[in-house]
Amino acid sequence: MEKLELLPLKDIHLDDPFWNKYTRLVTKQIIPYQWETLNDRIPDAEPSHCISNFQVAAGLKEGTFEGAVFQDTDVAKWLEAVAYSLSYEPDSSLEKTADEVIDLIGKAQQPDGYINTYFTILAPEHRWSNLREGHELYTAGHLLEAAVAYYKVTGKDKFLNIMRRFADLICDVFHQEKYSRAVPGHQEVEIGLIKLSEVTGDRKYMDMAKDFIDRRGTEPNYLVSEHKNPLWFSIFKDVKPFLPEYSQCHKPVREQESAEGHSVRATYMYCAMADLAAAYDDKELFQACERLWNNIVERRMYITGGIGSSGAYERFTTDYDLPNDCNYSESCASIGLALFSRRMAQITKNGKYIDAMERALYNTVLAGIAMDGKSFFYVNPLEVWPGNCLSHTSMEHVKPVRQKWFGVACCPPNIARTLASLGEYIYFRKDDDLWVNMYVSGETAFRTEKGTVTITQNTRFPFEGMVHLHIASDTSRPFRLALHVPSYAANFTLTAGGVRIQPEIKDGYAYLEDHFADTDITITFDMPAHFTYAHPDVRADAGKTAIEKGPLVYCLEEADNGDHLADIYINTKQPLEETYSETILSGTCIIKAKGKKISAGGWDGQTLYASQPPVLEDVDLQFIPYCYWDNRGGGEMSVWMKYLI
Amino acid sequence: MEKLELLPLKDIHLDDPFWNKYTRLVTKQIIPYQWETLNDRIPDAEPSHCISNFQVAAGLKEGTFEGAVFQDTDVAKWLEAVAYSLSYEPDSSLEKTADEVIDLIGKAQQPDGYINTYFTILAPEHRWSNLREGHELYTAGHLLEAAVAYYKVTGKDKFLNIMRRFADLICDVFHQEKYSRAVPGHQEVEIGLIKLSEVTGDRKYMDMAKDFIDRRGTEPNYLVSEHKNPLWFSIFKDVKPFLPEYSQCHKPVREQESAEGHSVRATYMYCAMADLAAAYDDKELFQACERLWNNIVERRMYITGGIGSSGAYERFTTDYDLPNDCNYSESCASIGLALFSRRMAQITKNGKYIDAMERALYNTVLAGIAMDGKSFFYVNPLEVWPGNCLSHTSMEHVKPVRQKWFGVACCPPNIARTLASLGEYIYFRKDDDLWVNMYVSGETAFRTEKGTVTITQNTRFPFEGMVHLHIASDTSRPFRLALHVPSYAANFTLTAGGVRIQPEIKDGYAYLEDHFADTDITITFDMPAHFTYAHPDVRADAGKTAIEKGPLVYCLEEADNGDHLADIYINTKQPLEETYSETILSGTCIIKAKGKKISAGGWDGQTLYASQPPVLEDVDLQFIPYCYWDNRGGGEMSVWMKYLI
Repeated sequence: MEKLELLPLKDIHLDDPFWNKYTRLVTKQIIPYQWETLNDRIPDAEPSHCISNFQVAAGLKEGTFEGAVFQDTDVAKWLEAVAYSLSYEPDSSLEKTADEVIDLIGKAQQPDGYINTYFTILAPEHRWSNLREGHELYTAGHLLEAAVAYYKVTGKDKFLNIMRRFADLICDVFHQEKYSRAVPGHQEVEIGLIKLSEVTGDRKYMDMAKDFIDRRGTEPNYLVSEHKNPLWFSIFKDVKPFLPEYSQCHKPVREQESAEGHSVRATYMYCAMADLAAAYDDKELFQACERLWNNIVERRMYITGGIGSSGAYERFTTDYDLPNDCNYSESCASIGLALFSRRMAQITKNGKYIDAMERALYNTVLAGIAMDGKSFFYVNPLEVWPGNCLSHTSMEHVKPVRQKWFGVACCPPNIARTLASLGEYIYFRKDDDLWVNMYVSGETAFRTEKGTVTITQNTRFPFEGMVHLHIASDTSRPFRLALHVPSYAANFTLTAGGVRIQPEIKDGYAYLEDHFADTDITITFDMPAHFTYAHPDVRADAGKTAIEKGPLVYCLEEADNGDHLADIYINTKQPLEETYSETILSGTCIIKAKGKKISAGGWDGQTLYASQPPVLEDVDLQFIPYCYWDNRGGGEMSVWMKYLI
Repeated sequence: MEKLELLPLKDIHLDDPFWNKYTRLVTKQIIPYQWETLNDRIPDAEPSHCISNFQVAAGLKEGTFEGAVFQDTDVAKWLEAVAYSLSYEPDSSLEKTADEVIDLIGKAQQPDGYINTYFTILAPEHRWSNLREGHELYTAGHLLEAAVAYYKVTGKDKFLNIMRRFADLICDVFHQEKYSRAVPGHQEVEIGLIKLSEVTGDRKYMDMAKDFIDRRGTEPNYLVSEHKNPLWFSIFKDVKPFLPEYSQCHKPVREQESAEGHSVRATYMYCAMADLAAAYDDKELFQACERLWNNIVERRMYITGGIGSSGAYERFTTDYDLPNDCNYSESCASIGLALFSRRMAQITKNGKYIDAMERALYNTVLAGIAMDGKSFFYVNPLEVWPGNCLSHTSMEHVKPVRQKWFGVACCPPNIARTLASLGEYIYFRKDDDLWVNMYVSGETAFRTEKGTVTITQNTRFPFEGMVHLHIASDTSRPFRLALHVPSYAANFTLTAGGVRIQPEIKDGYAYLEDHFADTDITITFDMPAHFTYAHPDVRADAGKTAIEKGPLVYCLEEADNGDHLADIYINTKQPLEETYSETILSGTCIIKAKGKKISAGGWDGQTLYASQPPVLEDVDLQFIPYCYWDNRGGGEMSVWMKYLI
């Protein structure tokens, strides 16, 4: 199965008014801050212990392991983000620090290649005995991803070789008879092994990933009965019995019809399935990917690209079950959805996957991080009343304001590595052809066998729909340029060299073919703010509407509209007014609308129920992009609102 | 502080078309069924182990303790329900069985008076070492209540004497220096001690209850630091730190401003506080009761009388936080609210407390039991979509259909004892005067110093508003008859001997004074079905209305209205049509209305979000009393519904 390729990140130089706000945070704020965190030098944050754990495991200092069983992954994701950041902002001092961390990881590697500070320090004899909870393979996967990223950007192979030794050990162990049915409790190593296989050309790592995927959910079910192993010991002290759906091992992956269980585990697995389907030309596996992706996007995804609607167990529930106030919708799960969707687009050249990828990136992933880069959402509700987000209640998981970096922190470094690798979402190539998925200003050059292509984007997307592209090429033959036509902008005009043209449109891309020696292209998408309605089976959104503009979902915030947002009805018969404000939220397009609001007039604090209907009063409403919420002091927020019938 | 008295249950003979459906279930169905359960003779139910535990503790058989730490309370509540049932349906065989159980309890009593099968069998040296979780005093309280009830109805004092010995031990232990600050983790013993004091006339039990209440929440906080006791051992394996609010020990009870924490613990404590306020003429304590009751009824109570809106920890959350689909609203908590409200009415003679009591009894308490008496709700949502009530999700606690009796079952026997003691809610007396709180057909006679009064009620309340009362009396002086005028029926007409009269109205009671030698009184309440709206601060109910008729809250059910109840808008401008149906639900008043429903037409299974607003179609709606829901095969249910603006 053909698969479009990503461009090397070091060839992509972004400089975009919308995205700079975030990508520059990665280098200026997140990476330095997380480095302090990993070293336990942030006075008012919970200690991470990450570097300390590696030092203890390496025998460089006395002490014990501290933190969660998957604590090493914070170092891995930090290194991965550092690698990506060096591609667009070289920093020799940072690179030196990363090299030192890599040296440390090497020293903590055991003679047989094993790396995991929890098991090395606390329970060496229990290695691989609790895959359900132990996260050894999950941790290995993140380290593998980091090693591949570091090699690709810097060309240095030390980390890659360290991890290749570990991968060799994994291949050996998991082909032993006693582990011949074993699978990871939290999928991720599959992605790492596939990337290692791609960069080294050694198919055995890919085969190992395929084995993990093929074994999963088959009988006898390894994860279900693993605790009978005498070496097994409980790590999470879970009272409830293990639910196979939680780890997507309830049936063989090829037979899975709907997205089930923990949404991060699920999407990471789907990523590996898509990669393997392409690598092995496995149509059955690919059909499973299509089915699972369709199930998510057609039935189980928030308008913000959030997934995993149960507050408990961070998991998928059932079709159309999308409560707005008590959901989990973890930032990492939307990253997983973006990664999965990107792979599906690479295989199919179908822009619908890019639409979903953008939905996740522009809304939930960006909402996950504050505009100052200092605090993060793990849980991403679409409606917040801070008053009922109380600890020791069923709303405990919902935080009405972003949280500082935690001792156990999967989302912040995951958001960092995602932002730092934004270029990988923007372009695909195959041979001489180029696909433009996202409109982000910057200059990119890539080499083909026939020559070099340079593409420059200049746009104020997504606040404006016009994109100027300049393409220069010295290639000897014409090639195809595919421009994503998002589903939210079916109407568009396209000019090449000032002449309006009607390109071929296929599966959400406009295809142009030319030498593009020196060509100016302007594509203008018609993407005004508009009302969106959810399928009537989504009970939580019945009688409600949301506002979208391009890839952005908008929301009401208390800062603009007062509290009691649930009391608002919007008038959908009145036009929406769009205005760009330089001052609000460092520059954003805001949207104004008219509506009515239930008045508290006539009610006192003594009457909870009355037979008199409440009175409505006229209100002016103002909306901001959902990704920007909670950057002005907390308060209520709502994406969906009632509309006047 | 004066406190109105309850009439002896054995003087109250009810025979009511509405209530017979339930009170007869207690004798015909629940008591015999629970007896089989307590003896582990129900093949498809989880074993209870209750009787077995007492046999083991008594040394009558080999074995160990099984079940929850508070398992003994199932026996206690069963005995209490048996006692009440014997007052209106004498049954010598049942009484003999009860006597045998009482003998068994006596044999399980330890030489010093102690009774608790968990600690006696499993951890005798750990007695009283974990009051936070151990439930020893909670269990003692329920046994005390049962013993007092059994004595009052049967006149037999064996059980009372057994429990008095245990109460003596409790008084001794909890006045020792090392327990001088100790309080129960789950309040209930206070109620039992107060009842024991009232029936024996021995004030020391009342004093012990008062000590427990006065100590609570004072520093140093016993429950907060109890685990430092070397004998303490964890029973519930809770990972989270103890939250003082959960057990209402976050501050002294007199300083508590709002209802906090576990709602059953809270209301049982408030009952004791009210009793003690009256007994000790303690105005400060009474003011705390008023404050806490107001906080519940004005800010934290569902229209159904449900309380405790957090699905986790069965607890109160914050003012106006009343989500309809994921709440807990335990049946036992509404029983607690009814018990607390009744006590407040006894002290104040204010009918507003009866209004709340009725709200809890007629709606949540009755909803807690199926019309065949064989299954029960513990959790009482106001909106159910069975599709998302999934295990291993944040909706796990919500059961869309009633559950069979559980191994650990607080609610079913609590509902049974409540229904069996219905008479205690109907009448109060003081000297020669009589208060009628609820309109329930039946005949009641009570003696005063001056003679005997007989009152006969004849009514089809709450489906009809007319109540015929016949009062016969041979008393030598006139006395006052107070008839509750519910807040839902401000308009009424009253005739005495066929002559319309205008009685004095005070605090929700109409007062008549006469010899009532042989008097017919007819009171007709104007209580048509009507729309009710919640305070605009209740975000969950904004833009919604509910239907009430008299004390009954109505609901939409899938059986009458199809699924997707969230897609319905009711037309509040059209009149509600009331019809009594003999066939539906064994006879009920149903309500019909007009509305519109969002149509699924035009939507397919591939489109989750679209810019086209959904179409509305006309629908006829039919409502049944909330208490009757889920008696016709499950499905969706909703109390609150959107209304057309």
